[in-house]
Amino acid sequence: MNAEILSVGTELLLGQILDTHAVTMAKLLASCGISCNRRATVGDNLDRIVETLQEMLARADVVVTIGGLGPTVDDLTRDAIALALGDSLVEEPEVERRLRAFYALRKLPWIETVARQALRPESAVLIDNPNGTAPGLLCQKNGKVVIALPGPRGEFDPMAEGPVRQFLSRLDGENVIHSRVLRICGMGESEVESKVVDLMAGENPSLAPYAHTGEVHLRITARASSEAEADGLIDPVEAQIRSILGSRVFGVDGTTLEQATIELAIARHVTLAVAESMTGGGLGERLSSVPGSSSAFLGGVICYGRTVKVNLLGVAEATLDKFGPVSSEVAIALAKGARTRVGSDYAVGITGNAGPTSDVDNKPVGLVFVAVAGPAGTTVEEAKFRGTREDIRRRATQLALLRLRDALLELEKPPLEGRLEG
Amino acid sequence: MNAEILSVGTELLLGQILDTHAVTMAKLLASCGISCNRRATVGDNLDRIVETLQEMLARADVVVTIGGLGPTVDDLTRDAIALALGDSLVEEPEVERRLRAFYALRKLPWIETVARQALRPESAVLIDNPNGTAPGLLCQKNGKVVIALPGPRGEFDPMAEGPVRQFLSRLDGENVIHSRVLRICGMGESEVESKVVDLMAGENPSLAPYAHTGEVHLRITARASSEAEADGLIDPVEAQIRSILGSRVFGVDGTTLEQATIELAIARHVTLAVAESMTGGGLGERLSSVPGSSSAFLGGVICYGRTVKVNLLGVAEATLDKFGPVSSEVAIALAKGARTRVGSDYAVGITGNAGPTSDVDNKPVGLVFVAVAGPAGTTVEEAKFRGTREDIRRRATQLALLRLRDALLELEKPPLEGRLEG
Repeated sequence: MNAEILSVGTELLLGQILDTHAVTMAKLLASCGISCNRRATVGDNLDRIVETLQEMLARADVVVTIGGLGPTVDDLTRDAIALALGDSLVEEPEVERRLRAFYALRKLPWIETVARQALRPESAVLIDNPNGTAPGLLCQKNGKVVIALPGPRGEFDPMAEGPVRQFLSRLDGENVIHSRVLRICGMGESEVESKVVDLMAGENPSLAPYAHTGEVHLRITARASSEAEADGLIDPVEAQIRSILGSRVFGVDGTTLEQATIELAIARHVTLAVAESMTGGGLGERLSSVPGSSSAFLGGVICYGRTVKVNLLGVAEATLDKFGPVSSEVAIALAKGARTRVGSDYAVGITGNAGPTSDVDNKPVGLVFVAVAGPAGTTVEEAKFRGTREDIRRRATQLALLRLRDALLELEKPPLEGRLEG
Repeated sequence: MNAEILSVGTELLLGQILDTHAVTMAKLLASCGISCNRRATVGDNLDRIVETLQEMLARADVVVTIGGLGPTVDDLTRDAIALALGDSLVEEPEVERRLRAFYALRKLPWIETVARQALRPESAVLIDNPNGTAPGLLCQKNGKVVIALPGPRGEFDPMAEGPVRQFLSRLDGENVIHSRVLRICGMGESEVESKVVDLMAGENPSLAPYAHTGEVHLRITARASSEAEADGLIDPVEAQIRSILGSRVFGVDGTTLEQATIELAIARHVTLAVAESMTGGGLGERLSSVPGSSSAFLGGVICYGRTVKVNLLGVAEATLDKFGPVSSEVAIALAKGARTRVGSDYAVGITGNAGPTSDVDNKPVGLVFVAVAGPAGTTVEEAKFRGTREDIRRRATQLALLRLRDALLELEKPPLEGRLEG
């Protein structure tokens, strides 16, 4: 059982709106065990809609169209479906009666194109639309199914989640597609892939890696007769991956690295602080984005200017003069200063040059130092990132979270790699 | 001249991510005067990618693919393009040399699929990718153009806006669709619309409002034979809007409110600081995201915990006890404390409850206080926002920027509305 989705609307092709309905429908199909192999978008052009529908019907069991059912001359999906299926359009007097009552009540002019909402391809049944004027269409002909839904969100969402889900979930009663994402930090995509390559040969569940900024996500996807059965297929694969990657797996599904770090700190009963130069508050923003983070995160200092580093964090003028603000020595002084001044168990210091131009010390763009001060001492790491100013700052906060988490894990682990100071 | 866009990735078909790149590319094509008639999405399946490319090449002058150029076994776009064009794949030794150096520098294992990034279809030239490993492809064969771009945002965006825009804008010299966005703060969408409603009747240029968090964007779009001619149509409309909305227009196109605020501070030769409780660094992050912001933004304190408010900002214990941390009195004390301790001309204090649950003082979720301290005194504003924790924090930083900008403008303007203290 497989499906394709056709989104109709010139505004989509011009990039004026994001096609979130197609995403909703893709998820809905997957959860009903129907594979979606293709999506397409065409504008409000009758020939192109018909042609694309015919191509899709030649390949797929189910075609879902989104948009183009309304009352204006641009709304052509109904006509296109009739043409693609070789159907004539028939009137639905009861729908026309309701439409006329609706327009009369709102004192809207009754124009010819409005009445077209009361037409349906002869092989269609109407899907009730309690939130708008145009009903949806459910056509079944020659072993194929075409479902047409209106574009406005308030109409689309309830029809998709209600009658359409009900219909689709019975179409192929045997299968659901269910997936789980393991989130991994401190390793690149190729490295992760090389370590789990044997597991990637499996088909059910299947395993696929995705690279994100400073993270790799491994998606385990199973097809089964129920979500519980799919979970039963996924569990042993997750266990194998965890036995290979150990604590590099920091979370499941939507868990962020900041969330994993805050949860670890809370579990270990320790407090955290930050001293941020180049990231200007971005690390604090991420840590404090976690609900309940105030149990572990105390705050810190945004030490963008030199005087703030000296006055609020106690960084020695001599250290700044000798090594420059972008240096491992200053990163260490920031972390130690934040730990002392805020009075936390752990503190992170970040300094670097995010660009776009080299700084006064001629330190290159992308050079970053991250220090973590804790009860067992202070570590520092130098990194060189590429990309835009935004990329470099994001990668710096990601590295800081990674090393902070490593330090928290070290409470019961062997020492970190890297230089140990203080 | 017409184009089609093919997005490649199973994660797109499963609805796990929104296809924002396709929107970026659709806008780019439109602005180069190239009609986009169709978009499609297929998964990581070689046969389907090839088949869809062949269908697109039969109809369109230009096909742009997005994604599937990376180093894993799922990355199949390069091979698919070669098959669809009847090209063989040839090695690019220089790219392989760079890849090997990149992997060696980062101590990443060199595995076989990585080397595939150094292959290109024989009719392709490589598009430089300064932000990642896989170059883009620009193929010209049999009067058709195929452009292949990588999926990661940090690689896609600069390649699309740089070399790809340059190439496409020369492909069809006759028409451009060009637009300019005026960004407005401190007014709602309906209010903006009601003030410019007469201008919205125009067709070339056309005018459309879009609501964003704490901002309204007015897009002026013109069609002309050149960008310069389109600008000539847009200029007088912009002038009319500015005469109606005055300083509520804070920027054009990509100008952010933080950028407008930093530029204003630099122009007035004043310095800025922050004291952030509920936003945890988010305001500092926004201010410091602006290149060159260090000329005006000195830093500040993330005062998430009570002790940080007291020790680093000098907030009186009595004030915290009497009014609670979420109060106008504490917001004022934070702003004044940051201004004194950092030694800046202006400082913003933010406190509030971002949720998801009411805080210890039983202050409701969404309650926010923003204070601005400056040479002329301190103002404070109370607001109540709805939405998720993320929404509320974002709206709080947006309000803070708005009021900071208002305070900076006041250097030559009548007094702010709102309560004046201190």
